[in-house]
Amino acid sequence: MTPSTIRPQSGTAFLLKKGQLLTVIDPEGQQVSDLVAFNAEDTAEWLSSGRTLDYASKFLLTTGDILYSNRSNAMLAIERDDVGRHDFLLAPCSKEMFAKLYGHAEPHRGCFGNLAEALEPYGITPDAIPTAFNVFMNVQVDGQKGTLSVEPPLSKAGDSTAFVAQMDLVVGLTACSAGLSNNFRFKPIHYRVE
Amino acid sequence: MTPSTIRPQSGTAFLLKKGQLLTVIDPEGQQVSDLVAFNAEDTAEWLSSGRTLDYASKFLLTTGDILYSNRSNAMLAIERDDVGRHDFLLAPCSKEMFAKLYGHAEPHRGCFGNLAEALEPYGITPDAIPTAFNVFMNVQVDGQKGTLSVEPPLSKAGDSTAFVAQMDLVVGLTACSAGLSNNFRFKPIHYRVE
Repeated sequence: MTPSTIRPQSGTAFLLKKGQLLTVIDPEGQQVSDLVAFNAEDTAEWLSSGRTLDYASKFLLTTGDILYSNRSNAMLAIERDDVGRHDFLLAPCSKEMFAKLYGHAEPHRGCFGNLAEALEPYGITPDAIPTAFNVFMNVQVDGQKGTLSVEPPLSKAGDSTAFVAQMDLVVGLTACSAGLSNNFRFKPIHYRVE
Repeated sequence: MTPSTIRPQSGTAFLLKKGQLLTVIDPEGQQVSDLVAFNAEDTAEWLSSGRTLDYASKFLLTTGDILYSNRSNAMLAIERDDVGRHDFLLAPCSKEMFAKLYGHAEPHRGCFGNLAEALEPYGITPDAIPTAFNVFMNVQVDGQKGTLSVEPPLSKAGDSTAFVAQMDLVVGLTACSAGLSNNFRFKPIHYRVE
């Protein structure tokens, strides 16, 4: 099945039914895809970093791990993972972030703006966008010093991570717009639903 | 000024005006207090772990650090800190968490339930409760293995952390109900607004 393409620095949203498999593919390597999810029946239920990290007792999630909602329900299960390094600590890049951290005078709207536009038809407001599961994002953590540093993704061309929906979901997905996250070359993301 | 008391395993909410100083005190030592905040003028703006960690480029926050909202506005500045070890990764303890992680058959509603009740008069719904800034919570992070482990707080009796409000806020604050977080003795939290 031909995958769908998310153009560089853009985003999309779609319905993912319970039991469907979502495969997120990095076609060129070293690209990040921010993923958010909402219960399709009640979009007030959202993918929660804080619940997921608590239940997993770890911040590096990979095959076999479950992503939970704010209501402690399983939303997505990681079925297969070529990369094993993703981030679930940092909020999606945004206009404000590019101004603050990159010093951009005319900042891109980032994954946040792309997600906000893509989710609007589902009745999901910008303020409802939580910390994303940042597929392929490589945030190195120094447990002693407490520092976080964004490094180039470990994903190579064609690598993918696959998720099985545990409930009917609205999923938002991007091809990330932050230079630090993708080694300063904006690339597309591919995805497949089956 | 006599501080206010949050009884063991309970919570409260109050208005904190821009410029006011909130001091969170651990009167007996080794107790955690979950703190959430919302813009008092528009409670759809909330304290965001993901934005804060991104702007700080670290997960250990202390004196001089700023806690940001989902809209990238400064909400609270840490003015003074006796302890230097707090958590901003894990969601508030909850009924579901006590069932899943502790195996409790009749689980306490936890900080989440306490915050939900305390915030309800301000029109803030349970689904709007984000990952809290867990004052005094000691979550050890292994940056290599990716593991998180909840250890007894480093706070001694009388230690405190003080925050200055950067906007008018609704603040929710608890005396934490999770045994692992407070070395299995439920204690009060004191706080002062000035």
